[in-house]
Amino acid sequence: MNQSIIVVKLGGTDGVDFSAICKDAAELLKQNIQLVLVHGGSAEANSLGEALGAPPKFITSPSGYTSRYTDRKTLEIFVMAVNGKINTLLVEQLQMLGINALGLSGLDGKLMQATRKDSIQSIENGKRKIIRDDYTGKIECVNTELLQTLLAGGYLPVIAPMAVSEKGEALNVDGDRAAAMVSSALKAEALILLTAVPGLI
Amino acid sequence: MNQSIIVVKLGGTDGVDFSAICKDAAELLKQNIQLVLVHGGSAEANSLGEALGAPPKFITSPSGYTSRYTDRKTLEIFVMAVNGKINTLLVEQLQMLGINALGLSGLDGKLMQATRKDSIQSIENGKRKIIRDDYTGKIECVNTELLQTLLAGGYLPVIAPMAVSEKGEALNVDGDRAAAMVSSALKAEALILLTAVPGLI
Repeated sequence: MNQSIIVVKLGGTDGVDFSAICKDAAELLKQNIQLVLVHGGSAEANSLGEALGAPPKFITSPSGYTSRYTDRKTLEIFVMAVNGKINTLLVEQLQMLGINALGLSGLDGKLMQATRKDSIQSIENGKRKIIRDDYTGKIECVNTELLQTLLAGGYLPVIAPMAVSEKGEALNVDGDRAAAMVSSALKAEALILLTAVPGLI
Repeated sequence: MNQSIIVVKLGGTDGVDFSAICKDAAELLKQNIQLVLVHGGSAEANSLGEALGAPPKFITSPSGYTSRYTDRKTLEIFVMAVNGKINTLLVEQLQMLGINALGLSGLDGKLMQATRKDSIQSIENGKRKIIRDDYTGKIECVNTELLQTLLAGGYLPVIAPMAVSEKGEALNVDGDRAAAMVSSALKAEALILLTAVPGLI
């Protein structure tokens, strides 16, 4: 019989209590449920960017949608904050609870492949501008086999919201979509999206 | 017949030309050789620490041996620079060459387990001092099965010099020893240690 799989997305804003979630994860694993965690990291990336003199910038599309402008410098900051600090320290917290966690980003083993637009349009002060150095993407597929191999080996995958482009570039991707795509690829029984709840910590 | 395995250690100081090494890796893979890369990152960790107002500190043991003092703040900087930036951008470079690289630190899946000393002695201004918040360790064993599973799946593991303590803590470890332990665990045909060569870039 296949074990049930649950995918949990941890929000990237301040206020999510990772330690409580890690303890809940330990309880679920005792009930023979397989888990995959997907995390965000926008707050950490913003504060690292500010500390390094590169505060976050945002793009507003002609249709009014606002997203983080990820030029190469911002991408490197995002990598450090999200794939470095948040992912590693989450794996550490889980290891300290006796859970054999394993951190990955979507670049690792092409875990999440995404399309990157060659250029995007932005509206600045009412004027239309073309941006060509934005490293964001939309996840199109997940390496299900890699996740299944890790789950079968008894590991708990902890996934950072980055993907690999067709050319092999690192891309910043939406964490909620990452969690949804992983959940769908694994035919997970449940996808749980946790966002910051004031007062939780 | 088992494929030959080669472990390559890339130095952590400035001046190592990662792009040339990635191209060499692509050539070796064409010859049906399995590869594992282990990298350092001390220069990157130093410069990030300086940018964040936490320059590196060093400890001199009573026997005269000097090592990086890794308190919790330094550990977080090390994690961002080494497991975040260097590991991820190395995986990206390899993916751009069509190599399915997969980045790991020793915390991931308990890839490298190390012992951490409860306290270490340091000599400062001729006086002996006890330090209890140093997150460094000595690697004692490697999760060979995890590496073999990844190699069998066609992935190229890229390993950051961090390990997990018996309690699950993240530890800064020596990259050369990491490479040697991985090489020994995999019964690698060769271990290649590359250090910075002035003029290479």
